Amino acid sequence: MESIIKGKPVADKISENLIKEVEELKAKGINPKLSIVRVGAKGGDLAYERGALKRCEKIGIITEVKEFPESITQEEYINELKKLNEDSSTHGILCFRPLPKHLSEEQIKYVISPEKDVDCFSPVNAAKVMEGDKSGYPPCTPTAVVEILKHYDVELSGKKVAVLGRSMVVGKPAAMLLLNENATVTICHSRTKDLATVTSEADVLVAAVGRARMVKENFVKEGAVVIDVGINVDEDGKLCGDVDTDAVKDKVSMITPVPAGVGSVTTSVLAKHIVKACKMQNNA
Amino acid sequence: MESIIKGKPVADKISENLIKEVEELKAKGINPKLSIVRVGAKGGDLAYERGALKRCEKIGIITEVKEFPESITQEEYINELKKLNEDSSTHGILCFRPLPKHLSEEQIKYVISPEKDVDCFSPVNAAKVMEGDKSGYPPCTPTAVVEILKHYDVELSGKKVAVLGRSMVVGKPAAMLLLNENATVTICHSRTKDLATVTSEADVLVAAVGRARMVKENFVKEGAVVIDVGINVDEDGKLCGDVDTDAVKDKVSMITPVPAGVGSVTTSVLAKHIVKACKMQNNA
Repeated sequence: MESIIKGKPVADKISENLIKEVEELKAKGINPKLSIVRVGAKGGDLAYERGALKRCEKIGIITEVKEFPESITQEEYINELKKLNEDSSTHGILCFRPLPKHLSEEQIKYVISPEKDVDCFSPVNAAKVMEGDKSGYPPCTPTAVVEILKHYDVELSGKKVAVLGRSMVVGKPAAMLLLNENATVTICHSRTKDLATVTSEADVLVAAVGRARMVKENFVKEGAVVIDVGINVDEDGKLCGDVDTDAVKDKVSMITPVPAGVGSVTTSVLAKHIVKACKMQNNA
Repeated sequence: MESIIKGKPVADKISENLIKEVEELKAKGINPKLSIVRVGAKGGDLAYERGALKRCEKIGIITEVKEFPESITQEEYINELKKLNEDSSTHGILCFRPLPKHLSEEQIKYVISPEKDVDCFSPVNAAKVMEGDKSGYPPCTPTAVVEILKHYDVELSGKKVAVLGRSMVVGKPAAMLLLNENATVTICHSRTKDLATVTSEADVLVAAVGRARMVKENFVKEGAVVIDVGINVDEDGKLCGDVDTDAVKDKVSMITPVPAGVGSVTTSVLAKHIVKACKMQNNA
C-alpha cells in the first residue's frame, strides 16, 4: 500500500473553497489583501514569499510586499507596522521572522494588530491557541498539520498523538491544536528519555525537531500516521525531513513527504487566515 | 514509608524568603501592595480571600479589597480596573473569576495591566506561560504544583509527567510549566482512551480534573509522585481531591493530600508574584 500522503490535494481543496469565498467578497466590493513585511532578502524568506504571492494570486487575494533594508531602525519598523495596522485596505500582515538582531521582536510582537496577525506573531493570538479560542490565528505550519490530518480523515479524538519538538512556531501550538481535537497529546523533545519508545506508542506522530532523518523505523508504531514538519538539508545537500521516510514508509499507514508535504499546505492556510481576517474586519 | 507530602513546609519556605525581601523593600521606602477585585460575595471567593489576606499580612504585603455589588456594569468594572492599573501604590491585582455572566471576561481580560496581573488573567501572561517566558505571571495553582515538586526534590528533566485535565487555570499552564522543566509531558482528559494505562506510565502525575477520588490504585505507577490539585466535595459532604489517597498512598513515593496540599501553597505563590511585580515596577 502506498503510504505517502501529499500536501497538494489538501492545499488545492482549501484554495478551491477560498476562490469561491473571495469571489463572493469581491461581488460585495471587498478585496482581501495581504501585506508582507520583509527586512533584507534572505533566501528562505524569498522562497516562502514567492509561494505565498503565487497562492494569493491564484485565489484572488491582493498582495503587497514592504521590503526594508537591514538598516531599518526599531522606531521605523514600528511606524511602518502601525501604518499597516491602520490601513483599512489591508487585512492580513505577515512579518518575516526572525528579525535582524537590532530589532526587538519582544517589543514589536505587541505592536502588530491581533486582528491582522495572520501567522501568530502577537501574544494575543498565542494565548488564543492555548485557550482553544478559534477566533484567533494560530501559526500557519501547525494549522497545516491539522488540515492534512482532517483532509485524510485521520481520527484524532481519544488518539495518542506525540509531538516531537517544542518550539513556539510548531511544537507547542501543534500540541494545543491537537489537544483541541481531543487527542491525548505527549510533547517530546531533546531531553525526553527513551524517545523512540515514547514516540512508538503514538497513533499519530508529528515530527518538528529540525534534525535530518532522525525518526527511524523503531520510532514509529505499526500503522501510525506520521506528519513530517522538518525541512532540513542533509550532508549531500539534499532536502529532507525529520523522518527517514524510506525506512519508515512501509511500517506506517500514512506519511507526509518532504518536500511536497506540510510545506505545500502552509501558504493555503495563510490565504485562509487572510480571507477570515478580511471577513471579520468587514463583518462580511 | 510515609508518602504524604504536605503543602505547609513549601508555603512556609516561600513565605520566609518573601518576609526578607519585603523588609528590604520597605527599608527603601517601597511597600508592596495587593488589590483584590471581587464582585458579590461567593463562599469560595471569600475563603480564598481570607487565606490570601492572612498570608500577605504575615509577609508584610499591604492589601485592599475592592468589593462591588453584582449590579456593577461592564463599564464600571473596567473603570475600576483601569484606576488600579494606574495607581502606582498597588503592584498586584487579583480579579476573582468567574465574573457574573453580564460582565464579559473576554473583554475585561485585555484591560488588566499585564505587569500587575499576578494570577494570569491577561492573555499576555498566558502567552508568556506558553513561551516559557519567565518575566510573566503564570496562574498561582499550577505554579504551586511546580514549587511543591521542586521543594521535595522531585527530578523533572527527562521524566514522564502526565497532566490529567486541560483547563486554562490548571491543566494547560501546568503542562507548559512542566515542559519548561524539561519533562516529557502528556496531557490527558475526559476523551483519553485507556486513561489508567496512560497515567500509570507517568513518573509524576498531576491530577486536575475536578472529579472526586477518580484516580485509583491502577492509575498510578509504583513509586510515582502524585500531585492532587482537585478540590471536590464527596457524597458525604467531605472535602477530597481527584485522587483516592487511601487507595494510592502505599503504592506511590509521594502524594499531596487534600486539604493541606496544593491549596496551602497557592497564596504563597500569589505573594511571591506580588513581590516580584512590586520589584519590577520599582526597578528594585
